[in-house]
Amino acid sequence: MPVNYTPPDPASLLPVPGVALGITEANIRKPNRKDVLLIQLEAGSHVAGVFTQNRFCAAPVRVCREHLGKSSAMRAIVVNTGIANAGTGEQGLTAARQTCGHVAVALGCKPEDVLPFSTGVIMEHLPVDRLAAGVAAAATKLAPDNWFAAAEAIMTTDTVPKAVSKRIDIDGAPVTITGISKGAGMIQPNMATMLGFIATDALVGEDVLQHIAAYAADQSFNVITVDGDTSTNDSFVIAATNKAGNPPINGEGTAEFTKLRDAITEVAILLAQAIVRDGEGATKFMSITVEGGESREECVRVGKSIAHSPLVKTAFFASDPNLGRILAAIGNAGVEDLDTSRVKLWLGDILVSENGGRAASYTEAQGQAVMKQAEITVRVALERGREAATVWTCDFSYDYVKINADYRS
Amino acid sequence: MPVNYTPPDPASLLPVPGVALGITEANIRKPNRKDVLLIQLEAGSHVAGVFTQNRFCAAPVRVCREHLGKSSAMRAIVVNTGIANAGTGEQGLTAARQTCGHVAVALGCKPEDVLPFSTGVIMEHLPVDRLAAGVAAAATKLAPDNWFAAAEAIMTTDTVPKAVSKRIDIDGAPVTITGISKGAGMIQPNMATMLGFIATDALVGEDVLQHIAAYAADQSFNVITVDGDTSTNDSFVIAATNKAGNPPINGEGTAEFTKLRDAITEVAILLAQAIVRDGEGATKFMSITVEGGESREECVRVGKSIAHSPLVKTAFFASDPNLGRILAAIGNAGVEDLDTSRVKLWLGDILVSENGGRAASYTEAQGQAVMKQAEITVRVALERGREAATVWTCDFSYDYVKINADYRS
Repeated sequence: MPVNYTPPDPASLLPVPGVALGITEANIRKPNRKDVLLIQLEAGSHVAGVFTQNRFCAAPVRVCREHLGKSSAMRAIVVNTGIANAGTGEQGLTAARQTCGHVAVALGCKPEDVLPFSTGVIMEHLPVDRLAAGVAAAATKLAPDNWFAAAEAIMTTDTVPKAVSKRIDIDGAPVTITGISKGAGMIQPNMATMLGFIATDALVGEDVLQHIAAYAADQSFNVITVDGDTSTNDSFVIAATNKAGNPPINGEGTAEFTKLRDAITEVAILLAQAIVRDGEGATKFMSITVEGGESREECVRVGKSIAHSPLVKTAFFASDPNLGRILAAIGNAGVEDLDTSRVKLWLGDILVSENGGRAASYTEAQGQAVMKQAEITVRVALERGREAATVWTCDFSYDYVKINADYRS
Repeated sequence: MPVNYTPPDPASLLPVPGVALGITEANIRKPNRKDVLLIQLEAGSHVAGVFTQNRFCAAPVRVCREHLGKSSAMRAIVVNTGIANAGTGEQGLTAARQTCGHVAVALGCKPEDVLPFSTGVIMEHLPVDRLAAGVAAAATKLAPDNWFAAAEAIMTTDTVPKAVSKRIDIDGAPVTITGISKGAGMIQPNMATMLGFIATDALVGEDVLQHIAAYAADQSFNVITVDGDTSTNDSFVIAATNKAGNPPINGEGTAEFTKLRDAITEVAILLAQAIVRDGEGATKFMSITVEGGESREECVRVGKSIAHSPLVKTAFFASDPNLGRILAAIGNAGVEDLDTSRVKLWLGDILVSENGGRAASYTEAQGQAVMKQAEITVRVALERGREAATVWTCDFSYDYVKINADYRS
C-alpha cells in the first residue's frame, strides 16, 4: 500500500483539448491486463522530453530521440507494458520502428510523428504482431476522458495508478495540465523504469517547452530514488497541444512562462512523489533537504547519498534513529573539502547533530518519535554555500527483497 | 553462515616474531564478549596504513593519521569493538588520544607510538575508563600465539572470525605473514567498518611497506562491497617487525619486493573475500570480472555498479538469471562513450549477451544452472581497452534487512 497516496478520483482528471487516449489489453506478456496505451495528439501539437542516461538505453528511447531530433511536432505516443524492449539489439530497434509504423497506419500520420515507450522486463523481445493488434484496437477507443485508464495501462510493479490534473489561468485563458506516471523499482531517474507523461493545451513555443521539461524533470523525477538503479527506459515527456487560446509563450522571462513552468513542475513533482510513495515495499516516505551547499548539484549528491544508503533505508524501515548511518552517508557523498564540524542534521524539527557529533539537546526518545512517523523529513545544513535541494525516497523493507526476488516469476 | 568460508584452525595461525597480542572483555557496549585487542610491536617495527575516504571519518582514524604523519615507527595497535567513536566531535578525539595514553602507560612507550582503532555503533561516546581498564588487563595477557582470539575480539556483526597466515622464503630467510579482518556491513571499503591488520616479520623499508599497503588494499579491500556504504572507520594496516633476517627490501624493482608484495596481497585478498563471504545476510558469493576497459578504474567502476545494484543483488538471491538488470547496471556505470553493441556478458562460462542483446546460443536453463550455485562468476568484456579488474560481492537477502533493521536493538 502506498505511503499517503490515494489514486485520484477518475472524474478529477481533466481532459486536455487536443488529446485523446485509447487503452487495450494486447496480451504483451501476460493476459487480462491493460498493457497498451495510445495517445493521439491533434495537429499543431509538439512534444519535449528527457530520457534515461543509461548507456544501455532501450530501443524505444533511441527511436524517441531520433524522432524528436527531426521535429518536435508529434501526433502520437504509444506505450506498452510487460516488455521493456531494452537489451534487445537491432531486433529491438526494428520492433520499435515497426510499432511506430503501425500507429501511423492506424492514425493516418507518419511513423516519425510517433513516440514509442516500453516498460517491463529487459532482454525479451516485443511481440510486434500482438502489439500491432493492440494499437489497432486502441485506435478505435480514443477518447479525451480516458486518463485514469491510461494511468492503469502503464503500471508494472506499481500497486496504484498515478495521475493528477491542474488548471491555471494564463491571461484570462484557462489552461489544463494533466499527467500520469508509473514506476516503483529500478528508480533513480536520471532521466528509471519511470515513465511520466504530461499534456497541456497551453500555447507554448517548442524551445520553451523543452526548457520547461528539463526544469520540471530536475525538480521532480531527477530527485527521487527508490533503489538507486537508473532504468534503461526512463522517459518524461510533455505534450503541448497549443489549443488553450492563451497569448503564445515564446520567451522565458515572462510571468506567463513562470506560471506555466511552475504549474507543470507542480504536476511533475506530484507524479514523481507518487512513484516513491508506491516504491517497492515502501512503508515510509522521506523528504531529504540539503541546504547551504555550494551548488544545487552538490546538495542533490549529498541527498542521494543518504537516500541510496541501504543502511539508512533499513534504519528508517525499523524506525531506528540510527543517526550515525546518516552522517556516514553524508561523509560518503564525495564532497572533498566538506568541513564536518559545520554540518548540522535535523530529524523532523529536532536538531540531532552538530559540531561533528550528537547535539547536546538531543534525546533518543525525540529521534524515535520522528522515526515512527510514515512521513519523515531529514534536513542537512552543510554551511558552505547558499544552494539547496530536496530529494525524495522511501525505506528499504523485507518486501523490497521479496518483490525483486519474485518479479520475473 | 558464511558462503564457503570456514574460520581457520587456530593452530594454523603463525606467530609473527616481534608481535604479541592481548585480548580482554572490557564491557565496552555489551558484557561477556571480547571487545579489546592490544597488539604490541617490538622496537624497530613500522606500520603502513590506508584509511577511509569518508569525510565523517572517525576520531581514531584521525589520530592514526596524525601519528603516522609524524613517524611510521610504532609500538602498539589498540582496537575496541562496540562503539566506533565516529560522529563524536572533539570529545571523541580526546577519547581516542586518551586511549593511546593508557596504552603508552601499560606498555612503556609514547602515546604517538600507538595506533587506535574502533568499530561498532556510530555517534556514541567511548567509555574511556572501561577501555583503560581493558587495556591494562590486555597488557597482562600479551602472547604471540593469540591471533585467533584477536580475530574474535574485533568481530561486530561478523558471524565468524577471519584470519589467515602465509609463510614465504626470501633469499633463504623464512618470512611470516599473519592477518585478521572484520566487517560484514557498511562495506564498500574505499578504504569500510572494515578493519584489516596484517603483520609480517619481513625486513622492509617504510616507503616500500606503504607502497605494498596501498597496492594490497587496491587489490583486496577496495574491490569488495556488501552494501556500497563506506564506513567512517575503515582501516587497513600492515606492521613489519623487521626481524626475519632477510636482506632488506628497500626498492620496488626486485624479485624479493614482488614476492613479499604478492604474498601480503594474497593474504589481504583472502581476508577481504572472507568479509564478503560473511556479508550480512549473504547466501552467495560473486566474482565480477570486467575486462577490456580503458583503465583499471573504469573496470572497477563497472564492476561496482553491478555489485551495488539492489536489483542485481536480489536477483542473485533469488537465483534468477535476470540479465537485463546486469546490463542496466553496466549502462549506469558512467562510462560515457560506452559502445553497448560491443559489450559481452558471461554468467559462469555461458555467453549470455552480445550485440546489445541476448546471445543467440543462450538458454534460460543455462543461466539458471549458474545462478543456483553459491559461488558465481560474472564476466563482462567492454572491448575498448586492455585493462581489467575483479570486484567481489554478495547477494541481498531478507536477512540483510533483518540484520540492519535490528542491529542497534
